[in-house]
Amino acid sequence: MRDAAATRDRILVAATAEFATHGIAGARVDRIATNAPTSKAQIYTYFGNKDALFDAVFAAHVADNVNTVPVDAQHLPEYAVGLYDAYLADPALVRLLAWARLERTPTGALFAHIPDHDVDVLQQLEAAQRSGVLVDDVAAQDLWAMLIAIAGTWAQAAVVHTAHPDEDPDEHARRRDALRRTTRRAFCQG
Amino acid sequence: MRDAAATRDRILVAATAEFATHGIAGARVDRIATNAPTSKAQIYTYFGNKDALFDAVFAAHVADNVNTVPVDAQHLPEYAVGLYDAYLADPALVRLLAWARLERTPTGALFAHIPDHDVDVLQQLEAAQRSGVLVDDVAAQDLWAMLIAIAGTWAQAAVVHTAHPDEDPDEHARRRDALRRTTRRAFCQG
Repeated sequence: MRDAAATRDRILVAATAEFATHGIAGARVDRIATNAPTSKAQIYTYFGNKDALFDAVFAAHVADNVNTVPVDAQHLPEYAVGLYDAYLADPALVRLLAWARLERTPTGALFAHIPDHDVDVLQQLEAAQRSGVLVDDVAAQDLWAMLIAIAGTWAQAAVVHTAHPDEDPDEHARRRDALRRTTRRAFCQG
Repeated sequence: MRDAAATRDRILVAATAEFATHGIAGARVDRIATNAPTSKAQIYTYFGNKDALFDAVFAAHVADNVNTVPVDAQHLPEYAVGLYDAYLADPALVRLLAWARLERTPTGALFAHIPDHDVDVLQQLEAAQRSGVLVDDVAAQDLWAMLIAIAGTWAQAAVVHTAHPDEDPDEHARRRDALRRTTRRAFCQG
């Protein structure tokens, strides 16, 4: 049983890298098998088909790591900067989200298949709006969507520029400061 | 000669749809040929290989339409709302950008291959910062990246929610209003 769990984990690690690099349609189960290492038959036994393996990666990596940085409605600027650093540290995260968006869910809520995905976050934001910490002239759901968008300004699906750990530390510091100031002005009261 | 130009145009239209739907690796030249309609040989004669055809689509559709809504540093909230509507009207645009990001340019500037792509925009933003229209405590390049990110909150690469023309008009109106207010607070002075 321990060997089985270890093999499943190695498959998930290899599959995360493969899907992050090539997407769902472009991923090759035989490359995942080679990199795990295990057999294709073992992968199919544990996870079914390639789409189901992507679901498992999404559940294990994305759904977990999307909340790696705990949402803190009292300190949204620091939360946004925390996401900047999380995206820098885990380049697979936003790439997996972006592939899921492009290949699976072209419109609507990306996490529509996970009921109540955002409920706790939206309640926290609404409470902070009522208590005067956050602006209350935009709906919490829109505030949340815009906050995630601006925190992902330099993430792996960026239209303008995707940050990389090897860039000059001054660049990262300048962006963090810009993100902190802008998030505060955009969403915080007083 | 007119026939040749018409055929090239039909190939670009079919290729835009194919790349927007399936990405670069996932696009099939024979589907593009069927939909143009033309022959695969004709496509290769006009455009070379599949990668070169993507380059042509990127140049003809994306590089043009990225500036469909003219940047107006004096009225950034209206500019952001203009982008919301442009993304809604042309769902291929951000999808092509996102595929290029995921498959071609995982880090750095997405338009690095188009020298001086952002020069005019950045000069316009810097002038508006100097004249007191825009906040001047963030670098113009960061202001620009954050503005594009927030304007794309509900676009085709969105992490939270991608808008769709069939949604309730009240939803669109609520988002436009939230985007207008937030862009003003984030970037405009006074």
